[in-house]
Amino acid sequence: MDISVKLENYSYKVSIGDLPYLNFAGRKVGIVTNPKVGGLHLKTLLQKITADEVIIITIPDGEEYKNMDSVNMILESMFNHRFNRKSLLIAFGGGVIGDITGFTASIYQRGIEFIQIPTTLLSGVDASVGGKTGINNKWGKNLIGTFHQPKAVYLDTIFLKTLGSREFGAGVAEIIKMAVIFDIKFFRWLEDHDLKNDENLRFAISRSVELKAMVVSQDERETGLRASLNYGHTFGHVVEHEGNYSKFLHGEAVAIGIIMANALAEKIGQFSEADSNRVLILLKKYNLPVNYKIVDVNNFYEKFWLDKKSSNKKITFILPLGIGDFKFRDDLDEKIVKSILEKFA
Amino acid sequence: MDISVKLENYSYKVSIGDLPYLNFAGRKVGIVTNPKVGGLHLKTLLQKITADEVIIITIPDGEEYKNMDSVNMILESMFNHRFNRKSLLIAFGGGVIGDITGFTASIYQRGIEFIQIPTTLLSGVDASVGGKTGINNKWGKNLIGTFHQPKAVYLDTIFLKTLGSREFGAGVAEIIKMAVIFDIKFFRWLEDHDLKNDENLRFAISRSVELKAMVVSQDERETGLRASLNYGHTFGHVVEHEGNYSKFLHGEAVAIGIIMANALAEKIGQFSEADSNRVLILLKKYNLPVNYKIVDVNNFYEKFWLDKKSSNKKITFILPLGIGDFKFRDDLDEKIVKSILEKFA
Repeated sequence: MDISVKLENYSYKVSIGDLPYLNFAGRKVGIVTNPKVGGLHLKTLLQKITADEVIIITIPDGEEYKNMDSVNMILESMFNHRFNRKSLLIAFGGGVIGDITGFTASIYQRGIEFIQIPTTLLSGVDASVGGKTGINNKWGKNLIGTFHQPKAVYLDTIFLKTLGSREFGAGVAEIIKMAVIFDIKFFRWLEDHDLKNDENLRFAISRSVELKAMVVSQDERETGLRASLNYGHTFGHVVEHEGNYSKFLHGEAVAIGIIMANALAEKIGQFSEADSNRVLILLKKYNLPVNYKIVDVNNFYEKFWLDKKSSNKKITFILPLGIGDFKFRDDLDEKIVKSILEKFA
Repeated sequence: MDISVKLENYSYKVSIGDLPYLNFAGRKVGIVTNPKVGGLHLKTLLQKITADEVIIITIPDGEEYKNMDSVNMILESMFNHRFNRKSLLIAFGGGVIGDITGFTASIYQRGIEFIQIPTTLLSGVDASVGGKTGINNKWGKNLIGTFHQPKAVYLDTIFLKTLGSREFGAGVAEIIKMAVIFDIKFFRWLEDHDLKNDENLRFAISRSVELKAMVVSQDERETGLRASLNYGHTFGHVVEHEGNYSKFLHGEAVAIGIIMANALAEKIGQFSEADSNRVLILLKKYNLPVNYKIVDVNNFYEKFWLDKKSSNKKITFILPLGIGDFKFRDDLDEKIVKSILEKFA
């Protein structure tokens, strides 16, 4: 199945299904991956690629390596192999590989093409689509980056078979996120189907990507609607940060963030207890964490400012309005928000 | 005088004349400059700016500092002062400051606005318009960079008064370049007028910027026409490189490159000796270098590959077709090109 991401002057396809043969005759290709993914899947990928020259660039696995050193390592390989403006990169891995590869492609000789071949569910349903690239630094996550859309995204579930159950669940959290804020029918479908079944999984990925493509088409640069994808993330980012980005996987922190956002939405009367419970049950079905112990409420609150979307002293929360819809809320009193945080303290 | 640079989904103005008052209430502004320009002109600039917070970031003067270290220095200041997506940078200096500031703005939180206020003639007529950003590394010039258009360009000749005569001439070389490939009338006007007169200078800047805006509007990403601006640069880049980027100013190397390109155009019969002489006389009028001693012809020829525009084993020369027009030539035999280089050996 192919889904089009239509932007103002650029469109590309997300292909869900068997990875096709990729012919890059006349061009050089750099595959960026990590040692683990490379060991598991590079053989499969290499069988599908024709190019003038293929080079493999591995960067260490983990969020802590999503930094300028890794970018420089990739650039070094590209220059050494005399990549030109027609050369291209393939991001072969999860979100870290995708973000860092996209960023490097966007600054090499003022921008070259890159392709996303995600190997995690999280990256497949979320990070690989939409053109956000970025690296972390001591001030926070994704604070350096660009918007640089991939030339194409190929999503073959064969690469997801080796995911551990925690990684799998982390991806499901982003799928559930999409359903809660955009699509009640999809949410009901998720309640009734098991994503461990491959056909179901492909459908859920397709629907999530469709929803994401719809959002990105309307607001590529995140001046409005696109920020809705941050549902669960405003809280989740703080949870991730408090756990030094090692205690929870990103999707796990989002699951906790969803629970917190729902509690806040309930508190201000735009979400029912029954709906909160339905979301809770769905998250639990995939063994996602739904409890969290806040040590210091004031400290937790202060960390909302880490978020790039916050500006000029307002915190914007994305809160569900029943299942299948949402509202941006930047009008919430500090006391109300903290009263919710207290419940987790 | 205002000149519009019209791109597919973005337009901005190049204002030539007195710097207006700039009101950035509600926003933070970072002025990136070097110690010399700062000492000469910062007072004038600061009197014209209103903002929530203004910070000054100086980076060392010179092409050798157009690197990732300087980018990191600017980012450090921005993060320390909690710049957000609504903050903006002002590039206050020559081409080095402009390129590096534009690049930093393009990667800070996936891109923030920046404004160009050029303080050299070269930057005013060329680098500050068109959105090319970049830094150098050990492999070459501008090999890392992005396309990121400024929000506005303000060109006030008051900042050019302190230019040395070599710097002034270097800027004139780019003006002459534009006239030779695009505009015979403008070329005749340049023959008849002295750019040391301020009114004449403003006209010449305006016309050059108009021509550049026309080119950039048609081909922002340099997939075709825009490469014509490389006239004189294919040879000039090698001259610059051989002089370690310190013997010649960029514009001076371009002047030498123009002489070489004209000699090649003459050789293949698309440019007359008389026209070659007219260009030579005009370059000499501004004390631009027109002689160069090539030590090793083969070595010089090999260095054409440094150029980002060269790919797949073809060298593309931009050669004048009479004065006021040009032709891309990627069909020239190595022997013919080397026979011209021999004349300079």
